Amino acid sequence: MYFKRTLLVSSLMAVSLSVAAQWEALPEAAPSPADNPMSEAKVVLGQALFMDPRFSKDGNISCNSCHNVMSGGDDNRPNSIGFHDQRGGRSAPTVWNAAFQSVQFWDGRAATLEEQAKGPVTNPIEMGMENLDAAMARVKAIPGYAPLFTAAFPDAKDAMTEDNAAKAVAAYERTLITPNSPYDKYVKGDKSAMNAQQIKGMNTFAEVGCTACHSGANFSGPKMETGQPFLMKFPTFPDTEYDKKYQFSADLGRYEVTKNEADKHAFRVPTLRNIALTAPYFHNGAVGHLDEAVKVMAKTQLGKDLSAEQAADLVAFLNALTGEFPEQTMPRLPATPGFTVIQ
Amino acid sequence: MYFKRTLLVSSLMAVSLSVAAQWEALPEAAPSPADNPMSEAKVVLGQALFMDPRFSKDGNISCNSCHNVMSGGDDNRPNSIGFHDQRGGRSAPTVWNAAFQSVQFWDGRAATLEEQAKGPVTNPIEMGMENLDAAMARVKAIPGYAPLFTAAFPDAKDAMTEDNAAKAVAAYERTLITPNSPYDKYVKGDKSAMNAQQIKGMNTFAEVGCTACHSGANFSGPKMETGQPFLMKFPTFPDTEYDKKYQFSADLGRYEVTKNEADKHAFRVPTLRNIALTAPYFHNGAVGHLDEAVKVMAKTQLGKDLSAEQAADLVAFLNALTGEFPEQTMPRLPATPGFTVIQ
Repeated sequence: MYFKRTLLVSSLMAVSLSVAAQWEALPEAAPSPADNPMSEAKVVLGQALFMDPRFSKDGNISCNSCHNVMSGGDDNRPNSIGFHDQRGGRSAPTVWNAAFQSVQFWDGRAATLEEQAKGPVTNPIEMGMENLDAAMARVKAIPGYAPLFTAAFPDAKDAMTEDNAAKAVAAYERTLITPNSPYDKYVKGDKSAMNAQQIKGMNTFAEVGCTACHSGANFSGPKMETGQPFLMKFPTFPDTEYDKKYQFSADLGRYEVTKNEADKHAFRVPTLRNIALTAPYFHNGAVGHLDEAVKVMAKTQLGKDLSAEQAADLVAFLNALTGEFPEQTMPRLPATPGFTVIQ
Repeated sequence: MYFKRTLLVSSLMAVSLSVAAQWEALPEAAPSPADNPMSEAKVVLGQALFMDPRFSKDGNISCNSCHNVMSGGDDNRPNSIGFHDQRGGRSAPTVWNAAFQSVQFWDGRAATLEEQAKGPVTNPIEMGMENLDAAMARVKAIPGYAPLFTAAFPDAKDAMTEDNAAKAVAAYERTLITPNSPYDKYVKGDKSAMNAQQIKGMNTFAEVGCTACHSGANFSGPKMETGQPFLMKFPTFPDTEYDKKYQFSADLGRYEVTKNEADKHAFRVPTLRNIALTAPYFHNGAVGHLDEAVKVMAKTQLGKDLSAEQAADLVAFLNALTGEFPEQTMPRLPATPGFTVIQ
């Protein structure tokens, strides 16, 4: 309990410490954990698993259904649609650059991409599988997956495990990074990469205080150890018209996981990378436009009313955070010759 | 009415005419209609539209959801899952090599791929859009689509029309062909391309009489004019245990469209290309295994009981109809910077 409280306090300290913005470009590669080194074979397997809808109960929902890598890595919906048309309470976070987050999910309940990858498969309102054994039974029933697992985990006695499936998906996700946004080019020295309004918005971003939380290369806070969340209370100023309108406070955030009073309304600070592509906004997806979202943030987190000019400049800057998306070959999903694994 | 009846009679005539099987390889390219010549720009646009879930009411279903080009071009489900988890009565046909079919849908109600492409978007149990105007309003609201339409239809005064969207999707679908299956290689002279059982199964396929309907390069009947369906009654022998078990006769087929008595239980003869990848089988997806499917076909269409050996040989041959799938680059779906078109 003490540990969790400390995290939130340290987050609040960050507010006062990081006013002097340190602009950082996005690294060209994401770090991999020691127990899951990157390999091409893992990425190939992970991409297939990520795209394959057969590991949802009805066979119609893949990771990519809600984290569409052909667009902003989310689904552009307030909430996602899962098993039997059920809707969750939170908006799907983008998978792009998730590799740079120290924790996963809005409440930071997963320490790693590997851990996160197992969650939606068995969530009864998401992919709806009874358990991971049932999901792995489907993987094993599809003949073409065995050689992909063997190639990805050549030293494993039994390669086809849920841990290895999660490792492969995580390895694939670590390739989903978007360097070379106008902002990145600007920071690296190409002063023509951002236009005048974007540069003005960048200054506004620091002056208003957005950098207090949205710092670092991923605009999701200071570099933390893996599994260590950078949390903020949202809304920090709860009694606003915005909160009445958008019902942000209805979600108790990390408290739902920890039942720790100090975690009430605490959320992981999300990345702002490619934020222009991931409307609607906030944990409940209640705000449809980026222009409104920046006004909401200033008011609920900093107690400030933005002028129309400030908001427009911030939006211009945030659009400069849209990066370059790596070209991907569409995978061939391994076949089940003459049968189907979907009931 | 007379016209429709003639078609069915001509189909039955084909049964007696085509016993001497003419083995044909799949062409390397599909024909395009005069009013929709192929172009790279159309294919690029069509692929994006095909993959984009935003033209379904809830923004979660694309053409690819039920016609997954990463696998067999269908969804490996008995029926597809559409808007608000609704299920249709028929199994999604494969989009692979659909360009070689003279009509589209199980009942042949669409003459062309262009016409077909418009159907699911506004089907209330599929993608669920109110009408095509509403779908086009979404297309137009996504800024990145305008240049793709202009590139694809450079001479059009108003490029962003539902007809052009359908043309682009159809152009993309005409690239979805799978040549060079073991069967194709065998027919073109590589006698090592099929193994002994597959060759035996090929002979069984002709001897038993499968070629009566599953003839031609696409194994979907003789070459017909576009819009002219090659129909068969299914089941032709209705009083079988199979029909009791799988309830094939519950669907009146083309009759549902034409209300013509002669069209009762008439269905388009489906392709057998990549049939090993598209379980479960038949218009209602009631049969889960290819081995069972060939027995059902022999009994219900030819009145024959296959031996276990014949069935196994036929399955081996049908597996030789799995072709080479062209490599595709995953499209970037055009963005909506700072907003979403999904309500």
